[in-house]
Amino acid sequence: MTDQTSNAMWGGRFAAGPDAVMEAINASIGFDQRLAAQDIAGSRAHAAMLAATGILSHSDAEAIREGLLTVLSEIEGGDFAFSPALEDIHMNVEARLKEIVGEAAGRLHTARSRNDQVATDFRLWVRDQIDAADAGLAALQRALVAQAEAGADLVMPGFTHLQTAQPVTWGHHMLAYVEMFARDRGRLADARRRLNECPLGAAALAGTGFPIDREMTARELGFDRPTANSLDAVSDRDFALEFLSAASICAMHLSRLSEELVIWASAQFRFVRLSDRFSTGSSIMPQKKNPDAAELIRAKIGRILGATMALFTVMKGLPLAYSKDMQEDKEQVFDAADALMLSLAAMEGMVRDMEANAPALEAAAATGFSTATDLADWLVRELGLPFREAHHVTGRLVAAAEAKGCDLPDLSLAEMQAVHESIRADVFDVLGVHNSVASRTSYGGTAPARVREQVAAWKERLG
Amino acid sequence: MTDQTSNAMWGGRFAAGPDAVMEAINASIGFDQRLAAQDIAGSRAHAAMLAATGILSHSDAEAIREGLLTVLSEIEGGDFAFSPALEDIHMNVEARLKEIVGEAAGRLHTARSRNDQVATDFRLWVRDQIDAADAGLAALQRALVAQAEAGADLVMPGFTHLQTAQPVTWGHHMLAYVEMFARDRGRLADARRRLNECPLGAAALAGTGFPIDREMTARELGFDRPTANSLDAVSDRDFALEFLSAASICAMHLSRLSEELVIWASAQFRFVRLSDRFSTGSSIMPQKKNPDAAELIRAKIGRILGATMALFTVMKGLPLAYSKDMQEDKEQVFDAADALMLSLAAMEGMVRDMEANAPALEAAAATGFSTATDLADWLVRELGLPFREAHHVTGRLVAAAEAKGCDLPDLSLAEMQAVHESIRADVFDVLGVHNSVASRTSYGGTAPARVREQVAAWKERLG
Amino acid sequence: MTDQTSNAMWGGRFAAGPDAVMEAINASIGFDQRLAAQDIAGSRAHAAMLAATGILSHSDAEAIREGLLTVLSEIEGGDFAFSPALEDIHMNVEARLKEIVGEAAGRLHTARSRNDQVATDFRLWVRDQIDAADAGLAALQRALVAQAEAGADLVMPGFTHLQTAQPVTWGHHMLAYVEMFARDRGRLADARRRLNECPLGAAALAGTGFPIDREMTARELGFDRPTANSLDAVSDRDFALEFLSAASICAMHLSRLSEELVIWASAQFRFVRLSDRFSTGSSIMPQKKNPDAAELIRAKIGRILGATMALFTVMKGLPLAYSKDMQEDKEQVFDAADALMLSLAAMEGMVRDMEANAPALEAAAATGFSTATDLADWLVRELGLPFREAHHVTGRLVAAAEAKGCDLPDLSLAEMQAVHESIRADVFDVLGVHNSVASRTSYGGTAPARVREQVAAWKERLG
Amino acid sequence: MTDQTSNAMWGGRFAAGPDAVMEAINASIGFDQRLAAQDIAGSRAHAAMLAATGILSHSDAEAIREGLLTVLSEIEGGDFAFSPALEDIHMNVEARLKEIVGEAAGRLHTARSRNDQVATDFRLWVRDQIDAADAGLAALQRALVAQAEAGADLVMPGFTHLQTAQPVTWGHHMLAYVEMFARDRGRLADARRRLNECPLGAAALAGTGFPIDREMTARELGFDRPTANSLDAVSDRDFALEFLSAASICAMHLSRLSEELVIWASAQFRFVRLSDRFSTGSSIMPQKKNPDAAELIRAKIGRILGATMALFTVMKGLPLAYSKDMQEDKEQVFDAADALMLSLAAMEGMVRDMEANAPALEAAAATGFSTATDLADWLVRELGLPFREAHHVTGRLVAAAEAKGCDLPDLSLAEMQAVHESIRADVFDVLGVHNSVASRTSYGGTAPARVREQVAAWKERLG
Repeated sequence: MTDQTSNAMWGGRFAAGPDAVMEAINASIGFDQRLAAQDIAGSRAHAAMLAATGILSHSDAEAIREGLLTVLSEIEGGDFAFSPALEDIHMNVEARLKEIVGEAAGRLHTARSRNDQVATDFRLWVRDQIDAADAGLAALQRALVAQAEAGADLVMPGFTHLQTAQPVTWGHHMLAYVEMFARDRGRLADARRRLNECPLGAAALAGTGFPIDREMTARELGFDRPTANSLDAVSDRDFALEFLSAASICAMHLSRLSEELVIWASAQFRFVRLSDRFSTGSSIMPQKKNPDAAELIRAKIGRILGATMALFTVMKGLPLAYSKDMQEDKEQVFDAADALMLSLAAMEGMVRDMEANAPALEAAAATGFSTATDLADWLVRELGLPFREAHHVTGRLVAAAEAKGCDLPDLSLAEMQAVHESIRADVFDVLGVHNSVASRTSYGGTAPARVREQVAAWKERLG
Repeated sequence: MTDQTSNAMWGGRFAAGPDAVMEAINASIGFDQRLAAQDIAGSRAHAAMLAATGILSHSDAEAIREGLLTVLSEIEGGDFAFSPALEDIHMNVEARLKEIVGEAAGRLHTARSRNDQVATDFRLWVRDQIDAADAGLAALQRALVAQAEAGADLVMPGFTHLQTAQPVTWGHHMLAYVEMFARDRGRLADARRRLNECPLGAAALAGTGFPIDREMTARELGFDRPTANSLDAVSDRDFALEFLSAASICAMHLSRLSEELVIWASAQFRFVRLSDRFSTGSSIMPQKKNPDAAELIRAKIGRILGATMALFTVMKGLPLAYSKDMQEDKEQVFDAADALMLSLAAMEGMVRDMEANAPALEAAAATGFSTATDLADWLVRELGLPFREAHHVTGRLVAAAEAKGCDLPDLSLAEMQAVHESIRADVFDVLGVHNSVASRTSYGGTAPARVREQVAAWKERLG
Repeated sequence: MTDQTSNAMWGGRFAAGPDAVMEAINASIGFDQRLAAQDIAGSRAHAAMLAATGILSHSDAEAIREGLLTVLSEIEGGDFAFSPALEDIHMNVEARLKEIVGEAAGRLHTARSRNDQVATDFRLWVRDQIDAADAGLAALQRALVAQAEAGADLVMPGFTHLQTAQPVTWGHHMLAYVEMFARDRGRLADARRRLNECPLGAAALAGTGFPIDREMTARELGFDRPTANSLDAVSDRDFALEFLSAASICAMHLSRLSEELVIWASAQFRFVRLSDRFSTGSSIMPQKKNPDAAELIRAKIGRILGATMALFTVMKGLPLAYSKDMQEDKEQVFDAADALMLSLAAMEGMVRDMEANAPALEAAAATGFSTATDLADWLVRELGLPFREAHHVTGRLVAAAEAKGCDLPDLSLAEMQAVHESIRADVFDVLGVHNSVASRTSYGGTAPARVREQVAAWKERLG
Repeated sequence: MTDQTSNAMWGGRFAAGPDAVMEAINASIGFDQRLAAQDIAGSRAHAAMLAATGILSHSDAEAIREGLLTVLSEIEGGDFAFSPALEDIHMNVEARLKEIVGEAAGRLHTARSRNDQVATDFRLWVRDQIDAADAGLAALQRALVAQAEAGADLVMPGFTHLQTAQPVTWGHHMLAYVEMFARDRGRLADARRRLNECPLGAAALAGTGFPIDREMTARELGFDRPTANSLDAVSDRDFALEFLSAASICAMHLSRLSEELVIWASAQFRFVRLSDRFSTGSSIMPQKKNPDAAELIRAKIGRILGATMALFTVMKGLPLAYSKDMQEDKEQVFDAADALMLSLAAMEGMVRDMEANAPALEAAAATGFSTATDLADWLVRELGLPFREAHHVTGRLVAAAEAKGCDLPDLSLAEMQAVHESIRADVFDVLGVHNSVASRTSYGGTAPARVREQVAAWKERLG
């Protein structure tokens, strides 16, 4: 392989070689080797374009393109010895290419620089992650829709402030997350569209005098068009920040669902049984079945949000065009993307495997005066009370039930009439939890009928 | 006005009134009064819909809608005494409405709750901010395009690592920021589209049994459609996070431009003269002319990013549906939006007023061996050297010039040929900075011709 | 009062006055008026020192010192009209002083600048907040110790992963937070010690040639010593960042306790009854008693951490000495400090008022095989099993109990011996929750005896 | 080695083995192997204590302690095959120990759990990092003091707002950073003191009934004392957050120095020559000498602050005691610590190697009316003008010099007297930059004499 003791790429201007500290802080090959496939794809497209525009001979271009495939197969096969002295993936690939194809390798870098090269590689990598995240989100949505379909009628407490508020259906609750993940997918799709411009040809920062064809390289690499300003092209990391921001919002959604699973899996709630596959035991407490996967996913927002914060901080106040600070972009995005993909996969598995504990859910739904709102609505609708007065009457009925140690349906009609004399026996129709959820048929409401409509629509959309 | 000493809205269930600490931590009226116009618009739409669907009488609806206009005019006129005891903008408005229209006011809250109400108000407010930010960005783009047009031929150093790299044109540099702000506008437009669904009718969390028409309220308030899941509708703050994330990226762009202005305004650079309007003096150093506006804008990313981190942290791990934690959303968004608008306005003014110091820019562009790349490209193009070899030859020529204490164009042909014998006299054509920039005609390149094309396109687009 | 339409302080060098945008972004008087008392204290100390060193006449100094007291009383009385045109608190105070004492006011600014002045004011302000936070933390600790004392014997489930792990005592749980808040106090005390150096006399950035006595002003203002480097003195905001970091850790502790209170107050846990004073009702669900204060405190970490991130981001990459960016420091610290004080006060009240639900806690502690570890320990201790083997045996006994639908104490001796024949009847002594907690007498353990020792020590320490 | 296909540690309760996703998200051995030395030290101390208290036989303890040394040497020698199926470092070590010493290994886990074990390991690791960071900071301080000593008399411009304000000395500027890094060391020392309590013996969360001696293990591991509350001991990650917060402040300081180096190394400033060792070239611009190390250090605050944000977010709202979320603590701290150490080492090398460009610094110091403050001070001191009037007079003199195209010392006495008739010829004594800095002898001022005093004091302190 190549010489690892000096960086022959920079020419002879430097008297002193970089010492160990400098190599440690400066070399990016330890992490940017993850861009190998993208780097080689970019170089292959560049070589083809150089040949098509007559800047490079067709024979040189062909040799380079073949040689690059050899390098790729070496890397993919694990046979490639990356050299920190060669700093980065671009230099490592080019040095090896030179060994394979000789001097022609030196012509590949015509009309480009590492600045537009890395911008291109990194965009391609992030684009792949967006596609992967979208697939992961779709799979998770499917798992949630399956839960929603199975539990369209299943009643559970709807909480606000973690206090029982009104009965809702399990299916409705699952679909709330389907909506969130749909927005996440929308954000990723928008980010992808905005990202999908090709920086290659911006060269170091000013463009080039060589008669390159940027449309061709853009097309070759699946970009919609070339970027319109060369200074911006090499300075821009918006695509990374936008991906990280979208990932952070998604991680926030995951943290909310995880929190619910952790609470629901507690002995006090018992709303859900998580599978053994996504739980672990304890080294000292043999009876424990811990919702580890849910906890770990809940924590991943820290990691992803931290990466977002990190890259924003790095980019703050950087003058144009490229500054070396920007080398700190990749590890943050790599780490956040890995965390996101892993979280999505684990959450999908957990959701797919989990079992709603129907009796516990229904029992909980029927306590806590959960149909007080139904009662208030009845007072408005049937007795014509203004809402605020209905609210007061309901409050007094709840107090009466509390004093008696029962829930609302357990009050007698007489006890109710003692609070408001116009109350009639048909009030009891709205005090059952199944009646309650069935009645909430407004668009977007929790009624099983509504849930089934949404499930059908989502199944159609998710394919 | 209304009773400020007790919160009559909750009914009589609470033995103890909230004390001062609780009021201080719990009341949101201190800040959510900024939602007054949105709250009243939402209530007016809700009242109209309740009447159209027969839930409310037309006379009640009309009284309520008129009364709300009265409340609005009182608030806008500064004649409204907000009460912390009434907690929030919703209660304050409703209490005053009751004074104006009597018992009918109590019917307005039918088929809604504060949860969907605040979600609606806040979306409307954020939507307005997106529109304002878009206008501010367009104005800033226009100021930059004007600078670009005036300086399409003006040569300046292009930097990487704050080291002179290659000559670029002032116009090209200005247009780099036009691109960034265009992406910001794109992100805001996407956020607006995603935000533009109406939560009203989700009620507390489950939807309602009243026969409401959510399409109607959505349409009335300029939303594209109602939200599809009531639990999600009241739990979702994605629109705020997406706005904050987009604002953070925009603030990052502003921080970069500000950093450049601060550096350019230094005595050592003298690239730009900032107007007195956006500079300040010193209390002790009378000669100082400080780029305060640029520094303050540079700092605003701290504030906006801090708000973003704050809201992400708040939302982390919240179970569905509404939790009171979410009340912390507004101040963060208010503060970030204010900071963004102010920064955009100040930056627009600063860019509009600033004068490029052409002689200093041209002089700087011509130093630092800034046409070394042109020389290397000439060696590739004219002598057929592989890029890497051309790079080495150029390095030796730079070293020769450094040793002689001059720049590249000042070497004699003989001195050049001593390094590489095939160099010809026409090499000097590429060593002047104007020739250098003129040659970079690749798409997105810095050549004045390219800059003029982009300026024309942007003027067309910006109207 | 003073002229508000032009800033007469900067002299005549600026042709154009600052326009509205510039005033809006540049003026700090909107928030730094909170530093009025500190600013005046600093000026009074400075005047006394100038007189003591002969730089200012004693009569001028006395007039200034008296005049400053007048200004202070006007501000405290709400009679002071702050002027944005005068930018900041320093200029506002000085302009008013000039009206009161005439030309002498102009001599006060000798040997200082706004740079060291604001650094001094802000340190004094943060120092006051540290003292206030320390008092708030001590009060909260006392409330927790009172709960710990009352519940030293009360048994509750100890959780890991929100799964019942082992029984612990309520008192022990309360004391865990006492430890956390003690560390918070330690961090604040360290920050105070490090902060407590006086920047006054650093002047703009270089010190001064006037024969000032920095020890004297430092002493006068309660600082331990003057700062040792004038450039650092005006550039340093470590004290603000250290306060914010300590506040963030404290807010994290508060968020954990709040989370527990929210979960414990749920209908499913019922571990605690929160007082009405720190709860609220619902506008639509009259039965709800929401733990709003706990939720709001839980959310405050967002705000405080956001402020911390904001100031770090602002300070990143600022060259020495003062840059205007640093004006963004105060609002972040003000907001974070307010949020911290309010959270501490609300949490103290909530803890003081809350009632542990002893029957629910004890019942929960006795379920979930919570004494499995006691059983495993017994197997190790009494039968000499290696821990890992004891763990396996315990696991099989738990499985047996699960299969039988009971908890560990409900297995018969025969059933136990079927799993491991050497088990003896005295094993049942360790399976009761009260025996379990009583046995954990290791230092720092949950045994009531240990808890009482800690309570006594804390009462001694907290006075 | 041990069985890698199933986790034999949890016993037989789990029907399904963890699948690939779960293993990927759950196993920590990929990173916590960095705690190997600490884990083994902790286990050796625990074994010794178990023997001393009679809980373990001396022969078992000795076998375990010897076996652990063998494991350590295998790990240090790179001969240890870590197994993801064994999840973490604790399980990996124990499993291998069992292979070496047999059943006795199973007794080691008596009276402890992974919760107190990992808390102990991690504290030990962070403590080591604090010590390493302190050493790195001291070395950097020494490099700065050496620069300060060599440049005690060297004059340079002191900036505010990156505008020339007053002349200062190079030595004084270097010492400003010495102060900052001294505070960093103070913060780390305080963090170390607070960290230095031993969690071992807290067991899972409740303490233990075994008669352990926590003082002994604490002493053995260099801790000051055992932690006082077992629930807190396993839940606490304050020590990590405090380390990260201190590291963030330090990274902020490094970012400021780096920013200055980047600006100073520009062609426009030329204040400093960085060594080739910490610079790099460009692949396309052979003349470039880029301050890469400075840029990379400047960027590290992103990484460290991101890690801080991440861990705060993870810890937010976690109920007691251990939750699996907390497993996310280590990678953040590892990464931040690595970044900090590398930054300190690189900065030390860069500072040691850099050369101040004296002629450029002095020339810059003498321009920009840098002695305007000296002039104003002279007017106050010699002519008795109030400061604000002196300020106005100075402003007019600056304007006169600007109009004439010269600096202040180049005005004639007559020109000065045209502005204020009392000005005398000795005013010129204060207008030279060397006189200016020499005059600033207030404590902490920039006068060479003051700088030399500080240098001497620091050399004494730093040894």
